[in-house]
Amino acid sequence: MSIAVSPLAPTDVPEMPAIAGVRLATAAAGIRYKGRTDVLLAVLDKGTTVAGVFTRSKCPSAPVEWCRARLGRGVARALVVNSGNANAFTGKTGRQATTLTASIAAKAAGCRPDEVFLASTGVIGEPLDATKFNGVLGTLAEAAVPGDWMAAARAIMTTDTFPKVATATVKLGKANVTINGIAKGSGMIAPDMATMLAFVFTDAPLGAGALQALLKSGVEDTFNAITVDGDTSTSDTLLAFATGAAAADGAPKISRAGDPRLKAFAKAFQAVLADLAEQVARDGEGARKLVEIIVDGATTKKSARRIAMSVANSPLVKTAIAGEDANWGRVVMAVGKAGEPADRDKLAISFNGIRVASRGARDPSYDEAEVSAAMKNPKIQIKIALGLGKGRDRVLTCDLTKEYVAINGDYRS
Amino acid sequence: MSIAVSPLAPTDVPEMPAIAGVRLATAAAGIRYKGRTDVLLAVLDKGTTVAGVFTRSKCPSAPVEWCRARLGRGVARALVVNSGNANAFTGKTGRQATTLTASIAAKAAGCRPDEVFLASTGVIGEPLDATKFNGVLGTLAEAAVPGDWMAAARAIMTTDTFPKVATATVKLGKANVTINGIAKGSGMIAPDMATMLAFVFTDAPLGAGALQALLKSGVEDTFNAITVDGDTSTSDTLLAFATGAAAADGAPKISRAGDPRLKAFAKAFQAVLADLAEQVARDGEGARKLVEIIVDGATTKKSARRIAMSVANSPLVKTAIAGEDANWGRVVMAVGKAGEPADRDKLAISFNGIRVASRGARDPSYDEAEVSAAMKNPKIQIKIALGLGKGRDRVLTCDLTKEYVAINGDYRS
Repeated sequence: MSIAVSPLAPTDVPEMPAIAGVRLATAAAGIRYKGRTDVLLAVLDKGTTVAGVFTRSKCPSAPVEWCRARLGRGVARALVVNSGNANAFTGKTGRQATTLTASIAAKAAGCRPDEVFLASTGVIGEPLDATKFNGVLGTLAEAAVPGDWMAAARAIMTTDTFPKVATATVKLGKANVTINGIAKGSGMIAPDMATMLAFVFTDAPLGAGALQALLKSGVEDTFNAITVDGDTSTSDTLLAFATGAAAADGAPKISRAGDPRLKAFAKAFQAVLADLAEQVARDGEGARKLVEIIVDGATTKKSARRIAMSVANSPLVKTAIAGEDANWGRVVMAVGKAGEPADRDKLAISFNGIRVASRGARDPSYDEAEVSAAMKNPKIQIKIALGLGKGRDRVLTCDLTKEYVAINGDYRS
Repeated sequence: MSIAVSPLAPTDVPEMPAIAGVRLATAAAGIRYKGRTDVLLAVLDKGTTVAGVFTRSKCPSAPVEWCRARLGRGVARALVVNSGNANAFTGKTGRQATTLTASIAAKAAGCRPDEVFLASTGVIGEPLDATKFNGVLGTLAEAAVPGDWMAAARAIMTTDTFPKVATATVKLGKANVTINGIAKGSGMIAPDMATMLAFVFTDAPLGAGALQALLKSGVEDTFNAITVDGDTSTSDTLLAFATGAAAADGAPKISRAGDPRLKAFAKAFQAVLADLAEQVARDGEGARKLVEIIVDGATTKKSARRIAMSVANSPLVKTAIAGEDANWGRVVMAVGKAGEPADRDKLAISFNGIRVASRGARDPSYDEAEVSAAMKNPKIQIKIALGLGKGRDRVLTCDLTKEYVAINGDYRS
């Protein structure tokens, strides 16, 4: 199992500012991993609103069901995340574990169990022993400080090779408000809603409805536009929390996502989601190359997305990129199998700006040496021009390496 | 690149009888490979009918388009297959290559170009130099004999590790008729019609309409029910030829697939297709395990197929099997992402007959040691009981190993 940090890890890690109304603490509860933290508690001030999007799996985890059922009230006071055990496919025991965790956390944070949100990530099908949170969460609630976001991001990792954080500061009215996000990947990534786990916090005073609308539209071109292996998790959870603390600095209270005062904030919020999503792709299991697939000239954006995903999930395209082979024939294959409108004889394909194929055949100017040199780049952009319409979309993925097979051939054992 | 024979290769290779009306010859034309045969010519007697099913790719190869356009007449006198170059995504040059190949073959076989069927397999996007067939096909036509079916199966291989043949002899009226088939895989296998290339020959006197109907219904649970990597080829071609020579022995001429006299034949024909399709799965690139996925209790057969394919194409399920890990959690994940009706709390899963999960949680009788021992078997059966309805289906696939990545990371270069 490869434990080195992904060569695609960001080189600049941002300074993460504190967010008023959010206190964090982490601990090693021994859920599964030894010698590392595996529980995160975020304590949220009164008045915090919450929004969330979740996996569309027909077999969701117990924490996903817990959150879904409690999202309607739009109010949150605590978030508990554990890594090492997904509490998925654990039947009645799983539901009991969520109830027990929420009740322990509620006691620790001084709120109602209904105001506690839960997320779990790790192995599927193993009962989660929630009694391990007894004591731990109380201690964490006392220790929680505006704190260490990197430590929070680290506590939720599974096969991730680096913690994923992103931040933005933006004007809302006259106040500066902050948006912080953390996320984890890094296999079973083909979000049909959100990737495995991501949490975004802001001190902006947003109503739960506005926050939900921002999240729902923001996820479409960020977390829903990445894939590692085409496998959608049972646990995909993206939660956003707005403490409203910036109201004290003069930030206006916003109840509708369409409010014109929210424009800069919405843009920054989307950028934080995009940053986190890209980091998940960069830390795809075994990844050595970040692959950006741009489809234009499709009949619609939806059609462009389907074609881009067909290419992004093709094992043959992904292994070719791992082998630094500009194998456009496999890109043609993946376009052809997508089932979307495509005309072979209008198709053009380029790798990192070099056109390799046009009008249904190899480009006349094709130069193997030039393309081979370009394929050594750690970032590969595949551009597919269909020449049919104005539909355009972009998807991020990574290559498929022997390390992916190694990691997943012995993850559980 | 692994060149050893797949450990899943059949141990018993059948004796392939001659088929009256079919003569075969192979040659090394130097299309791409060195030191091996790469062209097959089958010369067919007058009166031979033909049927075919092809890839549903929107970017099909030039030979697929050639065959499709000529299938309507239902008459065939020659089949030319080359390996090493797929003549796919080759634009106008590709169409010219098919025209030239057919004209050379027609001259060699003494028929019209319209009666020549073509198939190519190998790299995509490289122009095929059809002038290489000049002379070669004439020599082959003269050398063709009722012949060596193993040599024919060998000449059409690409990354295949063993030649794939199947045969059946069955009564039609008072005559014994024979069905011989050959096929090749072994990557880019997720047939949406037929796998890359397969050819079936019989001396039964079947009309083209009857043959087409048999092929269309036969392919559904054979070639369309296997997958290696979820990648549908641009070249998938399955052609069937009936010489009618057995009419001389008293076999009745059949014009409708529904003719009751065809019952035994139809069963044997289906068995030949199933045998070839299983061999393609057994020779999936890098495969070490044959995986049979049975879904029952789905709402419909179609829904069962989609769920089975979702499991069969999941990289996480396939790598777990490569690691001999009975990771039912990933099976749950793949069921959940299929988008078909499923109720987590009714789901039961077994590996090689051992129930590991039931009613949405680990089975109470689960014994890790027993399951681990079973996973060492080269054939793994995953049975998924949904408990919703009567829909049932079966799909064959193989595991995903480091060898798959190795083979496809340097196939072209």
